[in-house]
Amino acid sequence: MTQTTFISTATAGGTPPGTRAHLTSPVTQAALRVQNNITAAAREYLVGHGFMEMMPPMIGPVTDPGCRGAKQVDVDYYGHKYKLMTSVILYKQASLLAFDKVFYIAPNVRLEPLETADTGRHLVEFTQIDVEVAEVRRADVLDLLQDLLRHVVSYTLRESKADLAALDRDPDSFTAMLTKDFERLTHTGAVKRLRGLRHGQSADAEIDWQGEKLISEQTDRPFFIVDYPKGSRGFTDGEDATRPGTLNNFDLIAPHGFGELASGGERTYQYRTLIERMRETGENPAKYAWYLELAKEGLRPSAGFGLGLERLTRYIAGLDAIWQASAYPKLPGVAAP
Amino acid sequence: MTQTTFISTATAGGTPPGTRAHLTSPVTQAALRVQNNITAAAREYLVGHGFMEMMPPMIGPVTDPGCRGAKQVDVDYYGHKYKLMTSVILYKQASLLAFDKVFYIAPNVRLEPLETADTGRHLVEFTQIDVEVAEVRRADVLDLLQDLLRHVVSYTLRESKADLAALDRDPDSFTAMLTKDFERLTHTGAVKRLRGLRHGQSADAEIDWQGEKLISEQTDRPFFIVDYPKGSRGFTDGEDATRPGTLNNFDLIAPHGFGELASGGERTYQYRTLIERMRETGENPAKYAWYLELAKEGLRPSAGFGLGLERLTRYIAGLDAIWQASAYPKLPGVAAP
Repeated sequence: MTQTTFISTATAGGTPPGTRAHLTSPVTQAALRVQNNITAAAREYLVGHGFMEMMPPMIGPVTDPGCRGAKQVDVDYYGHKYKLMTSVILYKQASLLAFDKVFYIAPNVRLEPLETADTGRHLVEFTQIDVEVAEVRRADVLDLLQDLLRHVVSYTLRESKADLAALDRDPDSFTAMLTKDFERLTHTGAVKRLRGLRHGQSADAEIDWQGEKLISEQTDRPFFIVDYPKGSRGFTDGEDATRPGTLNNFDLIAPHGFGELASGGERTYQYRTLIERMRETGENPAKYAWYLELAKEGLRPSAGFGLGLERLTRYIAGLDAIWQASAYPKLPGVAAP
Repeated sequence: MTQTTFISTATAGGTPPGTRAHLTSPVTQAALRVQNNITAAAREYLVGHGFMEMMPPMIGPVTDPGCRGAKQVDVDYYGHKYKLMTSVILYKQASLLAFDKVFYIAPNVRLEPLETADTGRHLVEFTQIDVEVAEVRRADVLDLLQDLLRHVVSYTLRESKADLAALDRDPDSFTAMLTKDFERLTHTGAVKRLRGLRHGQSADAEIDWQGEKLISEQTDRPFFIVDYPKGSRGFTDGEDATRPGTLNNFDLIAPHGFGELASGGERTYQYRTLIERMRETGENPAKYAWYLELAKEGLRPSAGFGLGLERLTRYIAGLDAIWQASAYPKLPGVAAP
């Protein structure tokens, strides 16, 4: 096979060309082949570790409440107000009633604010590798995610060698992540680091995407930010019983400026705590009747994560913009197939 | 492993129990494990035959127009009227601009009429294994589908042996389909056969689901019905150039009363023919601007099919009702997660 190099000329703020130009581009085709190896590797790893794959729902009476500024899409379901999935998190928790370890490779839709259209890292429609394990703690899924990511990278470097070379992606970019443990930085530590970089990050809030990018530029391998403050996330993220106000959650940030890849943590699962946390986060418990009924009879404690497939593809393939990792990219506010 | 038999007590017209009872049922768990082997087998076969898997879109400006009495769901996409995917057929055709052979394992939503709630074979939300091949004819995909189905059945009989035994599914039910070619019956022949069974089937229309069930009860292996009359299907199904009024399409029907598993055929792909067929079928070409623009510059001729995953699971696992093959089944008109 001839190894033609076709370096992408897109900038992070660029917009996709029309469907024909996008689909016939060698960059798109290479990126999608790399993505196929990423999902194959993730399935191989997860199935090999006893996970059960579930088929993703598109709509439901409830979905993920914690989507930082992105709007949910309502649909009329035989006269009932349903929502498009923004993530399958509540379905993952429920599925643990059937199996101890589950995953979905699930499409999601989040109406992101218009100003995120040119970040190079936001898609309205995207895919998540959504993983959940019953009866484990955050530390277990941090290990799992590090191990999974290394497996995916090794597999893809091997199986997508020609495409990665054509995309001018240097395999040495991954040496550190394959050999050294991922750092586990607290939210407080991340805020400190960002302020040291003269980025005005609030100590009580989510790290904004500009901050994630900045901090991501300083590192040679992915790292975890753990222990977000309670006010910064939705009710699903479990609060530490011994450290009130601190969540046993995390984000996974890629190096070299690629930014966030995954979010996860332990889950809120007890009925009373769920009601309290819903009230604190401005969610109406009445809207979560199906989910709360399950919780009342008993959900299992669990931890897990959602790993963005297009973001992971962008990182592994070294793409300028996330839309290059989608056959039919939808950018915030832009009408597209 | 102990082989406990847990025969389902559901009837085809039964409704699913609550989420907890459904997910903790050994029947559900066995059915979902069988389903996992079905998708694994389908991927193994298709990837092994050079197919590229694409990530499914949930929403778009256009979707499959030809859904026999089922309604599409509208969503507001930044002020534009979008639809939930009823099938990815138009995206499959477009994707052939990038790759010669593609498949999706895609969730779909069709608001089926209320009277189909107790047929045992209709789900509002379901999954399709959606396959498309450029530059081939119907005969090629009939062979492909027969071969794929045999691979899936052999794989599942082997890998899900204990679950199928527990579900009391006799492996001998599949002997005929694994050893004898699937019959290829014309629509005219099917109408004749149905009338012989005293079922009043119109010669110009789709075979209704009762007819499919009836004809399916008479056979020992899956069979194809080919050559539907033009008025009975949407504009996507390609008309035979030498036999005006006849479509080069097909349905695949399972034996033993399980009914329809798949639909497919050659596709309409030329701009002028698409406009004509849209007008004939009452579709407004203005709504298909994105798709028609691609067709104007040239879509590739192709053939393919959509194979219902939950229907296939029901057939292979021998389930009474299709909702047993879904973790979160949505029946027409019934509010459910």
